[in-house]
Amino acid sequence: MSNTVEPDRRTAAAPDRPHAGHVTLINSFVVPEGRDEAFVALWTQASRYFREQPGFLSLRLHRALSPDAAYRFVNVAEWVSHQAFAAAHRTAQFKELIARPAWREFASNPVLYEVTTQHAVAGAQT
Amino acid sequence: MSNTVEPDRRTAAAPDRPHAGHVTLINSFVVPEGRDEAFVALWTQASRYFREQPGFLSLRLHRALSPDAAYRFVNVAEWVSHQAFAAAHRTAQFKELIARPAWREFASNPVLYEVTTQHAVAGAQT
Repeated sequence: MSNTVEPDRRTAAAPDRPHAGHVTLINSFVVPEGRDEAFVALWTQASRYFREQPGFLSLRLHRALSPDAAYRFVNVAEWVSHQAFAAAHRTAQFKELIARPAWREFASNPVLYEVTTQHAVAGAQT
Repeated sequence: MSNTVEPDRRTAAAPDRPHAGHVTLINSFVVPEGRDEAFVALWTQASRYFREQPGFLSLRLHRALSPDAAYRFVNVAEWVSHQAFAAAHRTAQFKELIARPAWREFASNPVLYEVTTQHAVAGAQT
């Protein structure tokens, strides 16, 4: 998977092996300097859609703190399963959202992951 | 920031503007096919060090579910501040850990972010 502006490729590839349990989307966005506000407005519309879909668990949008980051924004989102994630990307509403011409300015690189290790200090809100 | 195997560049750039509050490291690793086990063993040694440092909050190691992912592993780690994060990367112990020749096989791309938006469904463990 590499950066894309093609609507048909704006979703992560399916797992190449059977996978049960939660999945995490890490979707990295190329956002030109000075275009943060336009990107966030567009992304927020899409995120409202995803938050209403069955199987959505959480998301966090991250903004880079240094200007040399290849990806200025990264969305990390959890879903109950890769099937639920895929179903949310098959609807007519998703296709309409992602076909908007404004998206062509912001290439993305969506990849599905599983969490293999996690640790937190006591009391950390993670 | 781009992929690196240089020990001196194995930490994220500092913020280019004043920043108070939590920061999130997103560190993406290139891991050749068949080398997951060697990578995880090496990464686990480093993660043990970081988990003991002041200001460490949490980490999650993610493994890609599809083989075409440019980065097979991604570590997402929270720290109380970019200063605490930087301090943990200035110690002799960190420099020793990251200078190990085994790391040269696994290029990484560490970038610091701030969370700008988050949502979770009720009851989701995030």
